[in-house]
Amino acid sequence: MTEFLHVITSDGLIERLGAFARLPSELVSLSSAFDRIPAEGIMASEDLPERARSTVDGYAVQAADSFGASDSIPALFTVVGAVTMGALSDLLIGSGQTAYIPTGGFLPSGADAVVMVEYTNPVDEASVEVTHPVTSGANVLLPGEDVKTGELIVPAGEPLRPQDLGLLAGLGIASVRAYQQAKVAVISTGDEVVPVDRKPKPGQIRDANGHSISALVRAAGAIPLPFEIVPDDAGMLRAALADALGQADVVVLSGGSSVGMRDLIVEVVAALPGAEVLAHGIAIRPGKPTLLARHGGKAIFGLPGHPVSALIVAMIFLAPFLRYIQGGRLEKGPLGERTRATLAVSMHSIIGLEDYIRVRLERAADGEYIARPVFGKSSMLSTMARANGVIAVPAQAEGMVEGAAVEVIHI
Amino acid sequence: MTEFLHVITSDGLIERLGAFARLPSELVSLSSAFDRIPAEGIMASEDLPERARSTVDGYAVQAADSFGASDSIPALFTVVGAVTMGALSDLLIGSGQTAYIPTGGFLPSGADAVVMVEYTNPVDEASVEVTHPVTSGANVLLPGEDVKTGELIVPAGEPLRPQDLGLLAGLGIASVRAYQQAKVAVISTGDEVVPVDRKPKPGQIRDANGHSISALVRAAGAIPLPFEIVPDDAGMLRAALADALGQADVVVLSGGSSVGMRDLIVEVVAALPGAEVLAHGIAIRPGKPTLLARHGGKAIFGLPGHPVSALIVAMIFLAPFLRYIQGGRLEKGPLGERTRATLAVSMHSIIGLEDYIRVRLERAADGEYIARPVFGKSSMLSTMARANGVIAVPAQAEGMVEGAAVEVIHI
Repeated sequence: MTEFLHVITSDGLIERLGAFARLPSELVSLSSAFDRIPAEGIMASEDLPERARSTVDGYAVQAADSFGASDSIPALFTVVGAVTMGALSDLLIGSGQTAYIPTGGFLPSGADAVVMVEYTNPVDEASVEVTHPVTSGANVLLPGEDVKTGELIVPAGEPLRPQDLGLLAGLGIASVRAYQQAKVAVISTGDEVVPVDRKPKPGQIRDANGHSISALVRAAGAIPLPFEIVPDDAGMLRAALADALGQADVVVLSGGSSVGMRDLIVEVVAALPGAEVLAHGIAIRPGKPTLLARHGGKAIFGLPGHPVSALIVAMIFLAPFLRYIQGGRLEKGPLGERTRATLAVSMHSIIGLEDYIRVRLERAADGEYIARPVFGKSSMLSTMARANGVIAVPAQAEGMVEGAAVEVIHI
Repeated sequence: MTEFLHVITSDGLIERLGAFARLPSELVSLSSAFDRIPAEGIMASEDLPERARSTVDGYAVQAADSFGASDSIPALFTVVGAVTMGALSDLLIGSGQTAYIPTGGFLPSGADAVVMVEYTNPVDEASVEVTHPVTSGANVLLPGEDVKTGELIVPAGEPLRPQDLGLLAGLGIASVRAYQQAKVAVISTGDEVVPVDRKPKPGQIRDANGHSISALVRAAGAIPLPFEIVPDDAGMLRAALADALGQADVVVLSGGSSVGMRDLIVEVVAALPGAEVLAHGIAIRPGKPTLLARHGGKAIFGLPGHPVSALIVAMIFLAPFLRYIQGGRLEKGPLGERTRATLAVSMHSIIGLEDYIRVRLERAADGEYIARPVFGKSSMLSTMARANGVIAVPAQAEGMVEGAAVEVIHI
């Protein structure tokens, strides 16, 4: 029977995961850079805007000429032209003169402010009335006011969002140095496991883990490499592991649900020349029978065979680890948002194991959130599908009482 | 100058968007189904588990034989074999008999409960002591207890998560009927706009919108089709629009920042045979100069040219619309999580326009969230990059005061 030789806490496991090196970086073009994590802070290579630009549709003026203007006593301006987009204007705005300028247009020489079109009345083709005064710089974006040359515009370590890509594009930064995406070998094991499209014979079960773990890998921004199911055979497991370590940055084995397979995985991984077992057993529930090893700088996860346990462990440790080696922060998962909620009913927990309780997060009429534990035995796969969150109950807690304030992690 | 002929509220625009039909559905294999939205509720085609299975490593027994067992007076059982994974056992457990069973193993005939291995002591190869009583059904998952044939396991309209895929795989459902992903033509327009890899001449600007909007489309689970930049030319715009309507499910034009281009887009779209302008102007800030039209059942968005306005409008309307036609709910965006926070400083807002204020969401030491408005003119692209949330201030509000409870939408 399996003995767990190196049972560690979840914090201990996170610490061991944090000792792995991040993946190398690569140059990524902007069109592929969404959600990728920059390996270095990105600085502006020029000012934005390069020249003063109008932030409204209106009339470019010398601000001083508008002082005192009102609806009853408007200031009269001579229209000397109009700024067109896409070209520098050769207009020169003198005292008492103005030119129409569209949003984003470059301010013509001489002008230092723009009056919004709403505060003007056309008199004829050559003149316009201004009914509101403006101060110097009004409705103008000055050179470098948005971004200054050398300024940090995107920090390292945060996934790139649409607005970051817009800013990078605006500054002419056509590619970024980002961490590589992790390639993750996903290997289900066990004599009893058959692919989803095959009818299981009596005693067999279908491979749930291959699908759920691959999707989780994808959700973490990494690339799953699905492998064939490996039966309870040391030679075949050894071959699959060698193949996986050759192709992938991280290897995730799940299974076996049989004790024999569990032992086999530990044996084969531990016997790999140069491999080091970092943890064999984690003090969490579900998910205790988890293996973590290192080989040639690559992490090997041995997840429990049970689909609920395997997925919970993958959510808590694998997904954050993938985010980390791809350049992000390392924090115990799941990676979902956190919502503060009130616990709907009391629940028990085992002392000595950090307990992950599946809940349904609901919003009450008053806008507050309620966390309702999902009914059903913890080994039921349907409880994971019915849950949209988990609560982590600390190892030293005996449970939590109805009405307690809890933090729900979305799953 | 552009007149906004059909200025409507944001709720009015959402209502018009909700009148579009969803995309057709298609059959998607499980390995591609992550984050796709099922077009119909999925029912279980068989029981899970098919037969009673153990949820622990332990010994299968007749529960009645364990009654009264304790550490001081253990019950003695004769070991008649062990259940192996992957095969149906032909063991028969009689009174006083037991067999070793691994987690997930099928319960042998005669047994009705499993004693966890922790509550047993091996005596010799043929016998084992049990130190805790179990009731009938203990540590056993009964046939259909996880999922019953015909039960709804995944609802229509919710994106498939890793746990849903695991459950579908466990039940042998190898493909699902899901809504198609939207193909979205992304077209930047304007004489002054140049691609990101080209040095702008004086008066020109780089195409920020093409990149930010494409990334937003991707984040909404849709497929961006990037188009060449179209200059201020009715013929070229007409050709690009026809091409886009031929290839894509949704067309997104951005620009022009020049009034001329803005007029041109409205004219060309309105003149398209069979096109209907649904909105021309939305009562929001930023983003008022937005066009929505319909042609052959397809939506055409005309976003403002200014990168901040274009992205805000795309977050509030385009992303939710894409989620909706791909099978999800239609709610005003952005699509990010919502967090309740306290406003750090008072802020003004214009009556008559729904105002989208960029904020930085910070977590205070007490765990409460603070929303800090981002400093800078609203037309600055860098304010979008520095923000990680927005607050929607209703059209009828003059502003919000320091300390107010606000809902921050993550961006």
